[in-house]
Amino acid sequence: MAEPDAEQSAREQELVDRVAASFAGADDERLATVMQSLTRHLHAFLREVRLTEDEWNRGIAFLTAAGHITDDKRQEFILLSDVLGASMQTIAINNAAHANATEATVFGPFFVDDAPRIDNGGDISGGATGQPCWVEGTVTDTAGNPVPGARIEVWEADEDGFYDVQYGDDRTSGRAHLFTDDDGGYRFWGVTPTPYPIPHDGPVGALLAASGRSPMRAAHLHFMVTAPGLRTLVTHIFVRGDEQLASDSVFGVKDSLVMDFEEQPAGTPAPGGREVEGAWARTRFDVVLAPGD
Amino acid sequence: MAEPDAEQSAREQELVDRVAASFAGADDERLATVMQSLTRHLHAFLREVRLTEDEWNRGIAFLTAAGHITDDKRQEFILLSDVLGASMQTIAINNAAHANATEATVFGPFFVDDAPRIDNGGDISGGATGQPCWVEGTVTDTAGNPVPGARIEVWEADEDGFYDVQYGDDRTSGRAHLFTDDDGGYRFWGVTPTPYPIPHDGPVGALLAASGRSPMRAAHLHFMVTAPGLRTLVTHIFVRGDEQLASDSVFGVKDSLVMDFEEQPAGTPAPGGREVEGAWARTRFDVVLAPGD
Repeated sequence: MAEPDAEQSAREQELVDRVAASFAGADDERLATVMQSLTRHLHAFLREVRLTEDEWNRGIAFLTAAGHITDDKRQEFILLSDVLGASMQTIAINNAAHANATEATVFGPFFVDDAPRIDNGGDISGGATGQPCWVEGTVTDTAGNPVPGARIEVWEADEDGFYDVQYGDDRTSGRAHLFTDDDGGYRFWGVTPTPYPIPHDGPVGALLAASGRSPMRAAHLHFMVTAPGLRTLVTHIFVRGDEQLASDSVFGVKDSLVMDFEEQPAGTPAPGGREVEGAWARTRFDVVLAPGD
Repeated sequence: MAEPDAEQSAREQELVDRVAASFAGADDERLATVMQSLTRHLHAFLREVRLTEDEWNRGIAFLTAAGHITDDKRQEFILLSDVLGASMQTIAINNAAHANATEATVFGPFFVDDAPRIDNGGDISGGATGQPCWVEGTVTDTAGNPVPGARIEVWEADEDGFYDVQYGDDRTSGRAHLFTDDDGGYRFWGVTPTPYPIPHDGPVGALLAASGRSPMRAAHLHFMVTAPGLRTLVTHIFVRGDEQLASDSVFGVKDSLVMDFEEQPAGTPAPGGREVEGAWARTRFDVVLAPGD
């Protein structure tokens, strides 16, 4: 495409300035800042690629389709933000690395409030199918002090890649909350995470397909850890060796969050004297919470 | 907000690069170009304003509401593009100024195919209320040659600011097409344009209100002019003296498109011997079409 000449560029820039100025009068100064920045970057994109009118139409049609497939169970705009890395970038911006604190990653759309409480050593699977997996670790602050009574929410998909909220009934499975013990320790049974695709039968899926990108998420287990006076941590742990680690569709993988899931042959005695049929796995995840803001 | 340190910036940039790289494999090279540019500018915006997670949530909610109010009669994403100046920028990019050719402006959502044909000197109003207005001019190419047989589509709102498609019945009014005569001339009766608000009862209206911006469009009359071998022109003419010219909600105004609408006192003989009750107006709009691509 031809570079615009100086006169054309001046005309385009004048429009940008005029639109940005239109937001200067917002009572909320932050709104003005955000909208002016959005305006400048949006126009910079349009001008850089010299967007055609046909492409503009396709963009409008894309957003319209995303809006129409979105309901109280399906959120295509979050998916869009996810596959553009915008969700992960927002996480990164708001969770600057703090010394040795555990890194955050995307929240995802499958968290549910009021998941059942289990005791330490209990089972979150609640009927979710998959290889049994023992998860244990500690919660400490960045000085290494144990954090007793930290609340740990955990949630995950079953071996077919479905969360309970996707079953279409009211079952609760693959999710629970528990609290760290007096030494800041925690432990529970779940299932070994497996990779699964994000919903890809809508416009975001079509975009991924056209871009030669996989809709698969790397296998993971969600954590949200809260404790008074410390920064709430929303994160995942990933499975070392998972082939999807390098191409996670939402860019959620961080090296520090990839854990060894150690395969235990059938017959290996399991924690808490549990009788496990067949092989099982175990992993360790020590959580370090940053100071509160 | 604090500037991110070098380590944080590097982490954020690494994510941008990873997302951009994920689009490199698109079969369609143009798609790769567009998505990579979109990614870089979107992330630049997020990083510049240090978008908070709450703001991100509000952005998702805004897009969701826009999607849900959009149907086959209401297009909130086009409105959004309009009030961000993105529609007008796309027009500017694709209609680079060509010598003395008439400038383009936004198409808007109210064009209808197959509007009735009128003869030169006929009336497009078809019952649309408003002050009668005589519009005449010529269509030429940039060398000044008349263009006979050019097709001119015209459409406009009534004096209450409504297009026929907003009446909720099947009336056709305030729109027609006609052809230039052998000398490239055209002329018709319509109504004097009046300012009206874009639909502002949805999320875009709320954004404008929060930004202290008016939803009003400057008064205008739409033209689309097509002729073989020449670039199709989509434009408006505006009314000199209209108070909304400086704050048109979609940034469609260009100085060269602001015309004198001359008020004619009651009793002034009207073109074609038409009997007009009360005052009427007249204006002239000479169209110059750029060469075809």
